[in-house]
Amino acid sequence: MRSLREFLIGPPIPTRRLASERLSKFRALAAFSPDALSSVAYANQEIYLGLVVAGAAGLAFAWPIALGIGVLLGVLALSYSQTIHAYPSGGGSYTVARENLGTNWGLIAAAALLIDYVLTAAVSLTAGVAAIASAFPILWPWRVELALLILVIITVANLRGIRESGALMTVPVYLFLVTFLGMIAVGLVRAAFVDPAGSLAVAAPPASLPLSLFLVMHTFASGCTALTGIEAISNGVPAFKPPESRNADRTLRVMAILMGALFLGSIFLTQHFAVIAGPNETILSALARRVLGGGPLYYVVQAATLLVLAVAANTSFAGFPRVTSILARDGFLPHPLSQLGDRLVYSNGMLLLASLSGVLIVVFRGDSHLLIPLFAVGVFLAFSLSQAGMVVHWVRQHGPRWPLKAVINGLGAATTIITLGIVGVSKFLDGAWIVILLIPILVFVFFTIRGHYRETRKELALPAAPQAGALPPPPRVILPISGVHRGILEALDFALSISRDVTAVYIEIHPGDARRIRDTWKDWGRDVPLKVLDSPYRSIVDPLMDYLDALDGQLAQGQQVVIIVPEFIPARWWQFWLHNQTAWLIKLALLYRRRRHGHGRVIVDIPFYLRR
Amino acid sequence: MRSLREFLIGPPIPTRRLASERLSKFRALAAFSPDALSSVAYANQEIYLGLVVAGAAGLAFAWPIALGIGVLLGVLALSYSQTIHAYPSGGGSYTVARENLGTNWGLIAAAALLIDYVLTAAVSLTAGVAAIASAFPILWPWRVELALLILVIITVANLRGIRESGALMTVPVYLFLVTFLGMIAVGLVRAAFVDPAGSLAVAAPPASLPLSLFLVMHTFASGCTALTGIEAISNGVPAFKPPESRNADRTLRVMAILMGALFLGSIFLTQHFAVIAGPNETILSALARRVLGGGPLYYVVQAATLLVLAVAANTSFAGFPRVTSILARDGFLPHPLSQLGDRLVYSNGMLLLASLSGVLIVVFRGDSHLLIPLFAVGVFLAFSLSQAGMVVHWVRQHGPRWPLKAVINGLGAATTIITLGIVGVSKFLDGAWIVILLIPILVFVFFTIRGHYRETRKELALPAAPQAGALPPPPRVILPISGVHRGILEALDFALSISRDVTAVYIEIHPGDARRIRDTWKDWGRDVPLKVLDSPYRSIVDPLMDYLDALDGQLAQGQQVVIIVPEFIPARWWQFWLHNQTAWLIKLALLYRRRRHGHGRVIVDIPFYLRR
Repeated sequence: MRSLREFLIGPPIPTRRLASERLSKFRALAAFSPDALSSVAYANQEIYLGLVVAGAAGLAFAWPIALGIGVLLGVLALSYSQTIHAYPSGGGSYTVARENLGTNWGLIAAAALLIDYVLTAAVSLTAGVAAIASAFPILWPWRVELALLILVIITVANLRGIRESGALMTVPVYLFLVTFLGMIAVGLVRAAFVDPAGSLAVAAPPASLPLSLFLVMHTFASGCTALTGIEAISNGVPAFKPPESRNADRTLRVMAILMGALFLGSIFLTQHFAVIAGPNETILSALARRVLGGGPLYYVVQAATLLVLAVAANTSFAGFPRVTSILARDGFLPHPLSQLGDRLVYSNGMLLLASLSGVLIVVFRGDSHLLIPLFAVGVFLAFSLSQAGMVVHWVRQHGPRWPLKAVINGLGAATTIITLGIVGVSKFLDGAWIVILLIPILVFVFFTIRGHYRETRKELALPAAPQAGALPPPPRVILPISGVHRGILEALDFALSISRDVTAVYIEIHPGDARRIRDTWKDWGRDVPLKVLDSPYRSIVDPLMDYLDALDGQLAQGQQVVIIVPEFIPARWWQFWLHNQTAWLIKLALLYRRRRHGHGRVIVDIPFYLRR
Repeated sequence: MRSLREFLIGPPIPTRRLASERLSKFRALAAFSPDALSSVAYANQEIYLGLVVAGAAGLAFAWPIALGIGVLLGVLALSYSQTIHAYPSGGGSYTVARENLGTNWGLIAAAALLIDYVLTAAVSLTAGVAAIASAFPILWPWRVELALLILVIITVANLRGIRESGALMTVPVYLFLVTFLGMIAVGLVRAAFVDPAGSLAVAAPPASLPLSLFLVMHTFASGCTALTGIEAISNGVPAFKPPESRNADRTLRVMAILMGALFLGSIFLTQHFAVIAGPNETILSALARRVLGGGPLYYVVQAATLLVLAVAANTSFAGFPRVTSILARDGFLPHPLSQLGDRLVYSNGMLLLASLSGVLIVVFRGDSHLLIPLFAVGVFLAFSLSQAGMVVHWVRQHGPRWPLKAVINGLGAATTIITLGIVGVSKFLDGAWIVILLIPILVFVFFTIRGHYRETRKELALPAAPQAGALPPPPRVILPISGVHRGILEALDFALSISRDVTAVYIEIHPGDARRIRDTWKDWGRDVPLKVLDSPYRSIVDPLMDYLDALDGQLAQGQQVVIIVPEFIPARWWQFWLHNQTAWLIKLALLYRRRRHGHGRVIVDIPFYLRR
């Protein structure tokens, strides 16, 4: 067990190395950006599919819509740059919304973030695998298995620790950037010097729907999926090498410029060359073929697109465990989510994310199209709350140039709130309702958990002053026996070493068996009384519990009842199945069947190790 | 939990009602015969498919082959009738082979029987569901799920107790008997008075293979699957109402006559009317249409065939738990398999059977054709060993008319051994090899388990004479604490009530935390020393184990180490996830990481019940 674990995730790292496990800007870009960069791929596709139904007149709107989203990108980048400096300890939307808008809004933002991280992992993996499987049709029936396999690989890489996972993710991300930016550069050169512009009026299929304001707004909302992932860096500031804020801010700016170049460049070229995609091809694939021809370079771009989609799931592995650890530290999620694992990462959060994403992949049978509508709502809800929170932050703080800063974040808040409204309405029936339902449920869960922790702390609180009062008398010891053998004799010796008040109990399942036990006990029982209990229903546990209940009335003031449970521990794991696990049944019944009055009974476990 | 369980399988039954939970002959036939009766369906099909490749000349051999199998049926019925009287306590092939041929042969027979019971359940369910799904094509994609659903229903019915399950199974079995015997009667009347005989020479398709001795022998071997299940009654004699042997024998005779009538009647009519089946139809379905026309009666016969195949799996639920309970009582399987459950049935054996069959159904994706070749080998191996054992039994016993009895069983042994050879050779590559491989593996497992039980008994054996020697001194008590709170104070009081030698231990995960604990402990610790342990790798368990190992050298003669583990027990199940389950980790480490010298440590579990 332990060596398998060390093989997979490496040996434990001591706590003192915590500060050194940080990311350079180069690696941080690879760790936090795949979601943001790869979302360009499906945003392009959404815009194309949204407009093509209105024919050439519709497609003419692609460039204006892209420009609009580009402006939104700029606004968000500026806004999050301010957030990074204002909140260098990370936490993103949750922290910002909670500190400035209050706990309720903070938890709504947190719920939205958690849902999005899970969806990002599931959608990226299924979309990536569907793309790989489109290229290699032999993989098509194994889409779910393949997505789960990649999920496992990414999980293990992340459990090993953030530095290793950063290194692992660097190659696909930069491969994608180089090939994709290269393609756009080639396209721009060809547009300027070589090829004539295309004509949408000639190339576009006939319109099946009239062009309308709703159609344009709906397409704009779909295209906004290009912005998912832009907040990842502001949540992960503490993962950067010092100075954390400065490095994170620079990385965010580089990422935003790259996103803009990829998104606007590809839409411009699509528009300029009047590229039209067939029914079984994405618009990006059609563009790459138009610019690069059908040769090896085309396949490299496609492969890089698939790879970056697959590693986009990694963004969630950087973000989700951070948010859950912050929530756990605040008492809104179970404490184990705030514990650093062997490799100085939040292993529990990673495993939780992997499980939830895996369930989504299996339940939705690896179909990303059913998942995509769910996640824009959460993204823009978190954006809106974060921006609104920042406006309040600047107004309250009144620091240098606060009106300018408030205006920038106010612009961000206004645009994201409008977008949220558009997304929520236009995608409600497609699946957004699930998220809108889930968020209040999660907030309720958060408050329930905190309530439990507060109640526990109250129940455990120390009394007003230490009592130096009398100690309780030695306990009343009950020793259930299944026979008279060496293990029982050891347990009996122990019982007599802690108290003189010992009673052995035998539960008679086969009528008549007790006689033999009584005889042997006379010789070996060190004068401890033996009580025989009937068991008409062949249960060991029930008669014992009834006996213990009856005993409660006979106890001295403050006296505890101790039940000694002798337990065989076999030498090998498979031998476990060869013994009636009565010891476990008794222990579970004692721990989890509540005692009617007062406190529980004390359970003493005496292991008897079998040698072979 | 408990009320769900009582709803599903009913309230517990006291042991004193054991004798009354018996079957009448009418119900016993329904409980033990479905496998035997329903095997007629696929045996017919196997004979038809085996011969039709040789055209009319091949199909002419159907009746001689059927007669041969009919003779074998008579021989086996006579043989098992003798077994029932010689072994009224049941156990069948295993008991007979073990007592007369020795333990090795007995265990080989037992392994063969267990494999067959599992295969019978899986094959019957998948064949039944495939038949239902052929009638209602909408069910086709859900074959595996449907087979598992029926498996669950049958399992629950059997867990409720044998009388109820007998009642449940009565309807389909007698429906099948009435409709099928009725069809044969109608067919015979039509053959005698109404319809002319058919001509195979006219109806049969042209031969694709020449008629050969191998082809006839191979078809004979396939047709012998009609005999599977005939031994079920001799294994289950104790389930009959007294006089058990007499009632079981009569039931066996009736079942054998019914099997013969169904099998020979249907083959005779098929031959007489020269019935030929199309590519998507079974031969029995073709015969039923020929005799009854395509009207409602035809559908009733088909439905009854499907139902009886579905309940044939029930034969295994009568037989498998009996054989495993006998093996467990002899120490060759884990003891829990020999325990009567709440409802006076061997629940563990039933659950094991259900799990194994379920796995087979899932792994073979509900395809019975892949499973059928596996199970004839085991059946005839068990038959052969049982018959050979009976010969030895009579020769040794020298009772009245022993030579006649020995000759009858000798005939049984000879025919079944020859059939076993034919089946093993002709089906080896089809899957028989799996069973031939599995049987020695199972026998090895049986001996390994018995070896463990013998070793355990040796290690637990009492010393030569009781020592009245001195009791061990009070134990050394270690109290690991995670902080100072009410739960810890209760644990501390208990520790001091059993020994004066108490040490509290704090494991410091976040450097610096120990200062605060030390200060509080000064006020509340009742002068018990507090030891602080470093934990550079953030583990609670490892530093504690190292400390305990170091302690071993300081113990007095015979002194035990007691580790007190205070444990929160939340009021509601979901709250379990909100606490670090450190108590469980410590307990597991203490129980299962072996101590280097001497015996294990004693674990004391002090539950602290949270009120809300």
